[in-house]
Amino acid sequence: SKRYSITLLPGDGIGPEVISVAKNVLNLAASIDGIEFKYEEVPIGGAALDLTGVPLPDETLLSAKQSDAVLLGAIGGYKWDKNEKHLKPETGLLKLREGLKVFANLRPATVLPQLVDASTLKREVAEGVDLMVVRELTGGIYFGKPRGFGTNENGEEIGFNTEVYAAYEIDRIARVAFETARKRKGRLCSVDKANVLEASMFWRKRIMEIALEYPDVELSHMYVDNAAMQLIRDPKQFDTIVTNNIFGDILSDEASMITGSIGMLPSASLGESGPGLYEPIHGSAPDIAGQDKANPLATVLSAAMLLKYGLGEEKAAKRIEDAVLDTLNRGFRTGDIYSTGTKLVGCKEMGEEVLKSV
Amino acid sequence: SKRYSITLLPGDGIGPEVISVAKNVLNLAASIDGIEFKYEEVPIGGAALDLTGVPLPDETLLSAKQSDAVLLGAIGGYKWDKNEKHLKPETGLLKLREGLKVFANLRPATVLPQLVDASTLKREVAEGVDLMVVRELTGGIYFGKPRGFGTNENGEEIGFNTEVYAAYEIDRIARVAFETARKRKGRLCSVDKANVLEASMFWRKRIMEIALEYPDVELSHMYVDNAAMQLIRDPKQFDTIVTNNIFGDILSDEASMITGSIGMLPSASLGESGPGLYEPIHGSAPDIAGQDKANPLATVLSAAMLLKYGLGEEKAAKRIEDAVLDTLNRGFRTGDIYSTGTKLVGCKEMGEEVLKSV
Ligand SMILES: CC(C)[C@H](C(=O)O)[C@@H](O)C(=O)O
Ligand SMILES: CC(C)[C@H](C(=O)O)[C@@H](O)C(=O)O
Repeated sequence: SKRYSITLLPGDGIGPEVISVAKNVLNLAASIDGIEFKYEEVPIGGAALDLTGVPLPDETLLSAKQSDAVLLGAIGGYKWDKNEKHLKPETGLLKLREGLKVFANLRPATVLPQLVDASTLKREVAEGVDLMVVRELTGGIYFGKPRGFGTNENGEEIGFNTEVYAAYEIDRIARVAFETARKRKGRLCSVDKANVLEASMFWRKRIMEIALEYPDVELSHMYVDNAAMQLIRDPKQFDTIVTNNIFGDILSDEASMITGSIGMLPSASLGESGPGLYEPIHGSAPDIAGQDKANPLATVLSAAMLLKYGLGEEKAAKRIEDAVLDTLNRGFRTGDIYSTGTKLVGCKEMGEEVLKSV
Repeated sequence: SKRYSITLLPGDGIGPEVISVAKNVLNLAASIDGIEFKYEEVPIGGAALDLTGVPLPDETLLSAKQSDAVLLGAIGGYKWDKNEKHLKPETGLLKLREGLKVFANLRPATVLPQLVDASTLKREVAEGVDLMVVRELTGGIYFGKPRGFGTNENGEEIGFNTEVYAAYEIDRIARVAFETARKRKGRLCSVDKANVLEASMFWRKRIMEIALEYPDVELSHMYVDNAAMQLIRDPKQFDTIVTNNIFGDILSDEASMITGSIGMLPSASLGESGPGLYEPIHGSAPDIAGQDKANPLATVLSAAMLLKYGLGEEKAAKRIEDAVLDTLNRGFRTGDIYSTGTKLVGCKEMGEEVLKSV
């Protein structure tokens, strides 16, 4: 029997509810292959701020680093919105990404046939969408220095950040993206703003350089404003998208909303080595926290990504994905994906139904 | 009789075709009020590069500065895509915006009842959308220094840009946005990434400061990733949006695609004083250039904005807007907005029909 150690980070809002469901599904699906987990549950974000005064306690980062994989619920909430930068829940998440060196954020956006009507896009536009955003996660304007507040040469107050990419940062995310595209439909679209920004011109140059290693992958380039349009006009044109941290933040959220079911979408953040970070795309939804209304499926599917990308346990991962589809086929829906004729359930009950389907 | 001087910048691709139509409509609509125009037609973008070797010749900027208003077609094309930064058509446009100091870019996104089915969004989601993006146009990462290429402390090659805003830049765009919201439905949503970026935290702080001058306008704040989602989930929730240069570039294009008719959308770029710059939202569409297929209505409606915002000639502006609606009601459509049962026309014929409706 195999044993893995998992760090669980329930975080804030609906985080604890969805993590609790995902943990049960993970246990059952893996036990069939004789896999056992040792869990360490530690605080992050607002929960950590309230407990320890910082959004990422040293113990939390240490636990995550020493684990085989990290599963996160969600962070943030109104309560901490006005905190100073270093005391924001978001800063905890950014420090975790940085600490784990998980530079590659994989965000699939898939429209399931069962849920096509949940999209605000017309059926014929949404049907069959299946794309993957590969977002650079530990560089760019999120981490670039110098940053802060100051005064300019005229003595005016200013706020500033630096968008910066080094060759190795672009090269490594490019390789992850080309590998990903190779395993999918073989098409990679790199999104930048190379008609205006030097950081983007350099990005494009390096992407074209790395492309030489992947002659079997079809590479295209698109400006970010056009990409924001094309995702709405015809999302099916995309297979794999690679882009920088801030454009990836915007475009992956846009892509997820196109599916109409952001409560369904998982993500994986991977480094060169060491544990990956798995989390749903959605936020902490403080408005419905503690009400047993959250959709746990994005976190359940993040657990499947954890098994697949983090532990190489593809069979157990597939078991979870199939169980989710089976549960949907049996008609169960949380509020966010409910439509007439289906069975409305809460977070816990959805979890129990998935367990039955495993 | 009143006389105004207009600088015409046809530019590249379909630019000359749509400008020629807009000029005819402008002449007719204004002549009814005894208004006369003196036009100066000068090159910009790729056209200027081919003629003079630079994307914004001094004569072009001078003509624009001395005019009462500037009407632009579009710039850019494959031919110049690989040019170095200072020889890109886009650099000409950025220098023009900078030279005219037009810091406020107004981009309406309206779904006309006649064209609601052109949207890829479901009818009930698209119907009635009527929002205005107020984009900061002469600051932020588009113009911030330092920028360029270099090496970091480890000797790695880098590309970098600076996102920076000074208080006065935020304050003046905030005032334009609050004034705009006041004349619309009184709701302003400021979009930023204040949970991560110092430039955004400073942006939010100044917006809240200026809000004190506009107690009658309802202000909200939204993170840019969420805004990209909300525009698809429920675009009707927005009245006026204010945001920085790069977020505005992305979100205004996204908003325009939601209407399904980007060939219909005008824009105005305004400074504290001096001539404004009026241009369609769409690009130069090199693939259909010279084929009489372009939709000239975005440029015709930009001419209406020129009359309204630039010259204070509201009656003539209204005349153009009404003529466009009448032409649509009479069933005329260019290819981009064509649907069964309507009459397909080319760029020129569309222009002639609008003239009949004036
Ligand atoms: C919470 C925030 C810091 C984060 C980001 O901007 O990366 C989130 O929006 C995301 O996409 O995971
Ligand atoms: C052509 C380009 C420089 C420009 C911009 O990014 O501002 C365009 O996309 C726009 O939105 O007007």
